[in-house]
Amino acid sequence: MKLIRFGLPGEEKPGIITDAGMFDASAFGEDFGERFFETDGLSRLSAWWTANSEKSPRVPDGVRLGSPVQRPSKIICIGLNYADHARETNAQIPKEPIVFFKSTSSLVGPNDNLVIPRNSVKTDWEVELAVVIGKKASYVEEKDAMDYIAGYALHNDYSEREFQLERGGQWVKGKSNDTFAPLGPWLATKDEIADVDNLRLWLTVNGKTMQDGNTSNLIFKIPFIVSYLSQFMTLLPGDVISTGTPAGVGLGFNPPVYLKAGDVIELGIDGLGSSRQTAVAWQK
Amino acid sequence: MKLIRFGLPGEEKPGIITDAGMFDASAFGEDFGERFFETDGLSRLSAWWTANSEKSPRVPDGVRLGSPVQRPSKIICIGLNYADHARETNAQIPKEPIVFFKSTSSLVGPNDNLVIPRNSVKTDWEVELAVVIGKKASYVEEKDAMDYIAGYALHNDYSEREFQLERGGQWVKGKSNDTFAPLGPWLATKDEIADVDNLRLWLTVNGKTMQDGNTSNLIFKIPFIVSYLSQFMTLLPGDVISTGTPAGVGLGFNPPVYLKAGDVIELGIDGLGSSRQTAVAWQK
Repeated sequence: MKLIRFGLPGEEKPGIITDAGMFDASAFGEDFGERFFETDGLSRLSAWWTANSEKSPRVPDGVRLGSPVQRPSKIICIGLNYADHARETNAQIPKEPIVFFKSTSSLVGPNDNLVIPRNSVKTDWEVELAVVIGKKASYVEEKDAMDYIAGYALHNDYSEREFQLERGGQWVKGKSNDTFAPLGPWLATKDEIADVDNLRLWLTVNGKTMQDGNTSNLIFKIPFIVSYLSQFMTLLPGDVISTGTPAGVGLGFNPPVYLKAGDVIELGIDGLGSSRQTAVAWQK
Repeated sequence: MKLIRFGLPGEEKPGIITDAGMFDASAFGEDFGERFFETDGLSRLSAWWTANSEKSPRVPDGVRLGSPVQRPSKIICIGLNYADHARETNAQIPKEPIVFFKSTSSLVGPNDNLVIPRNSVKTDWEVELAVVIGKKASYVEEKDAMDYIAGYALHNDYSEREFQLERGGQWVKGKSNDTFAPLGPWLATKDEIADVDNLRLWLTVNGKTMQDGNTSNLIFKIPFIVSYLSQFMTLLPGDVISTGTPAGVGLGFNPPVYLKAGDVIELGIDGLGSSRQTAVAWQK
């Protein structure tokens, strides 16, 4: 299944995408959040869809998409998880995963505007494969880790490099502004993606290709990441893990290239669709 | 007002503490979370309490207390915000606040056991004054920052120093295990605390005083912290900001002193009560 959420910010309704289009699943009666996933919502939704697909209305054309999952308890990111990206930022290949959080208040829909923060001069992009957790995971072994995954989504881990790297301390400061986590268009359940270790991911700015990588180059693979994280915290259903970005971020150019109002950022991953953000200046 | 939540984990009910004891406020009909704070819940609760205090039942003796706020969107921590603590950890006095997140899944009640994580050998304590946000805050000026605060609570920012400092990258890895954020006993509304810049805070391990500081020594004061954070992320109602710890953590001793199963940790802050955790070993 491919799950979407559509409608105005904060008022999103659940929906399903098939080859025939986008359908309204409001009648299922649940949003795609922690409680949905922890109560085996994917199986229940699948059964409901089998019985109700023919009477489900289409989602009107042009409607806004929201994040395909409700605000989770955490957005966890893995840093420097592609060797080419580590090299371009002059960082060492990590010996074990580098972990940081984004604020969950940064989560938005896949095609919402990117708001460049006030006083930002170094807003940058990062196309990433995001994993959505399907059930509570604590001290999970790597061999069992895939059982804890609900599915995957496209994520742009927007990053303000000055806030992240030049303002003292920890990266979270440059990862958490509003609109810095466009997720979607859809959540593809695990069974939709035949080989998650071989997906092309790409990003363009104003039509020019900046990133073009493949998840086959992930240093730490998804089952290892889920197992690893679960030693340090309990992963809750609906939690989002963003697995890192390949080479081609603005910070990696010489001189660096950062976003300005009017720029159009497009990105995609095989099987997870594409998204498009327009950069706008912060306004009071 | 002093707000509490009581009952079994995940089933907490709202309550109020007065000089006469602890009272059940379930009849108010709302839990103390994001929606409560953002809809002026404190004023509504106060009015309700005026009308209903006499018919509110007492909370039974010996009942467990939960965190006085529901799981928030974020637990934000300020690092090295007391000069004596920066010195004891051989860190420089920061030029601007060091910011990191704890997972919200680490949040527990004030007297719940501390579970020492599997494979942990460096679990440490940090008594801290926590601020609870009362309304959505984005790009707030320092002069207005106090308007965005609902109140204060006692927090123990448990930290696994090996996970935090020796496992590569960012601090969040050592701050996020389950039970690492006991909050409470109560949320004191802003008006309960006459001078938040002059509160003694202390912590003992097995009866021996380890930390004994005063919020007068905060390097970055609360209005500055709220304003500062709101430049980097939107603070949501119910969000928790933990303002840093004074000297006396286990990492600061020579040789360092860490917690082991059976240790009893007690802590308190003037006007915010005291809490008590017993360290236990992780069990499957």
